[in-house]
Amino acid sequence: MTPRPLADDRKAPGPMTHEPETWLALAGGVGAARFLRGLVRAVPPNEITALVNTGDDCSFYGVHVSPDCDIVTYTLAGMIDGERGWGLEGDTFQLVDALEQLGHQVWFRLGDRDYATCLHRTLRMAGGAGLAQVADELRQRFGVAVRIVPMSEDPCPTNVRLTDGRVLHFEEYLIREGSPDTVAGVDLSAAEAAKPAPGVLDAIAEARAILVCPSNPVVSVGPILAVPGVRDAIAAAGVPVVAVSPIVGGKPVKGPAAQLLRGVGCEVSALGVAEFYREWITGFVIDEQDADHAKAIEALGLDVRVVDTIMRDAEAAEGVARAVLELAG
Amino acid sequence: MTPRPLADDRKAPGPMTHEPETWLALAGGVGAARFLRGLVRAVPPNEITALVNTGDDCSFYGVHVSPDCDIVTYTLAGMIDGERGWGLEGDTFQLVDALEQLGHQVWFRLGDRDYATCLHRTLRMAGGAGLAQVADELRQRFGVAVRIVPMSEDPCPTNVRLTDGRVLHFEEYLIREGSPDTVAGVDLSAAEAAKPAPGVLDAIAEARAILVCPSNPVVSVGPILAVPGVRDAIAAAGVPVVAVSPIVGGKPVKGPAAQLLRGVGCEVSALGVAEFYREWITGFVIDEQDADHAKAIEALGLDVRVVDTIMRDAEAAEGVARAVLELAG
Repeated sequence: MTPRPLADDRKAPGPMTHEPETWLALAGGVGAARFLRGLVRAVPPNEITALVNTGDDCSFYGVHVSPDCDIVTYTLAGMIDGERGWGLEGDTFQLVDALEQLGHQVWFRLGDRDYATCLHRTLRMAGGAGLAQVADELRQRFGVAVRIVPMSEDPCPTNVRLTDGRVLHFEEYLIREGSPDTVAGVDLSAAEAAKPAPGVLDAIAEARAILVCPSNPVVSVGPILAVPGVRDAIAAAGVPVVAVSPIVGGKPVKGPAAQLLRGVGCEVSALGVAEFYREWITGFVIDEQDADHAKAIEALGLDVRVVDTIMRDAEAAEGVARAVLELAG
Repeated sequence: MTPRPLADDRKAPGPMTHEPETWLALAGGVGAARFLRGLVRAVPPNEITALVNTGDDCSFYGVHVSPDCDIVTYTLAGMIDGERGWGLEGDTFQLVDALEQLGHQVWFRLGDRDYATCLHRTLRMAGGAGLAQVADELRQRFGVAVRIVPMSEDPCPTNVRLTDGRVLHFEEYLIREGSPDTVAGVDLSAAEAAKPAPGVLDAIAEARAILVCPSNPVVSVGPILAVPGVRDAIAAAGVPVVAVSPIVGGKPVKGPAAQLLRGVGCEVSALGVAEFYREWITGFVIDEQDADHAKAIEALGLDVRVVDTIMRDAEAAEGVARAVLELAG
């Protein structure tokens, strides 16, 4: 929530009013950011709170990288590298190139200005600031009105177990290994033992509706839900909870959702995700290509909307957001 | 000393021989680097050891910056930004620019690739490596045959006391404050309490001669001399110790030597520096512009050579080096 200008406060003296209720969006990285880019066209940005996965957070080159928080921030700031879906548009890679020449492994190619964001986070945290405070500072520095709240300030690494017995941090799985289809399971035990970040449970309690971005159900939404207290708070809020299917025509729009859904024994389809989410959501938005799943999803007790969910631009994303808002009533 | 190829060792089996004696150069930053660029043309580079000041070392943006070690390494690698005299040629400044936009003070403008060098140092030291080991790794990575040995692995910040009572780290004095002429004194107490780095005392003991680069006498050569054991080792070595005057025509060629010499009560002239060094050097090379000081310097008991000491290119630097070597001969 951005503070209202002082002039407004002076016009309306008297007892403090409650903050307006917010639209709370559970968010991972690229898919969430694209959805939020549409949502800010449909409702006032300062009435949106993004509750963001930190299971991807990792230390690289001495700095705390928070991929999903930064993808959401950069996207809403209009500064994302649209082609890659992460990092800053026009960023350079001098630092990682030079590190490589000094013998470092640089499979995580953090851009120079992107590194500065992470270095700022690291220096602020070394000075005693919390991850949530820094995420809030950063989104303000980048001129983003949407509140960005990391799910936890505790380390919550999502680990992926492979059929060959190896256990990899999600970023190792995704980037270094190229998302092989040999997932034996996903370990969210760090998130399951973490405390929600300051503001998380309040943001859920104050939400007028909870929107689940078209993010990876297993490694983006899953970790948020795994943080103790989050699922209970969502249930206690008693508001509509509407998700967008990240699976379109039986395939994820982007990323390794298919491998991960299969790895946890879930069908890679809109229906499969609806079943994965059914216990805690009330509505589900699916793509026209999956219209034949609508009846089966309704049979799970969920409200369904069928629209074009491919967010090729901000206008298309706005259409998806409006469908979600309709279901969230 | 770069290891000799294994083939050579095989040709000459038998008892280990001593390492060849080395030319030991006491070195600060820019002036030292330019002199060494000439010295490597006059003697085999792998017979030179640069004993480098670390009084300028400082932490910026989370990394250990070692300005003099890096200036010497970059210069000998042929990669220095010749115009600035520090940093890597063609480096970019995305990181500090981005940090500035995030609210950081960035008066120390570390380039992106230069930052990578310092980050490598920091990560290696966090992993348990010593500053000397990292300096040696870095010079090898940069293809530099001259051995580069930092004077100490302990923090040795050189502090400058100003007449207004402020005490500044040397980099704050030099860069942030722009070297004001209000120096009340120089505090080398950290160097005076430090241990010599591994290899320092051995390098002095093994030297066939000790060369004092045309560096700032107060804040470049001074800290090296202040490290306990260094001065005694130089005296005990019993070899020629030949300095090049950093003062030419009554002015330093570059940098704030005038302010600092005045601040410690020393005359800003070739003679003044000769007096400052007289107790532990045996020879002094001065510029043609200061030829009228030669007699007075000889009267201090020093051998003197008068040459053109302006090192406008590597060939000119070689001339200065050859004059030093003659005196050290």
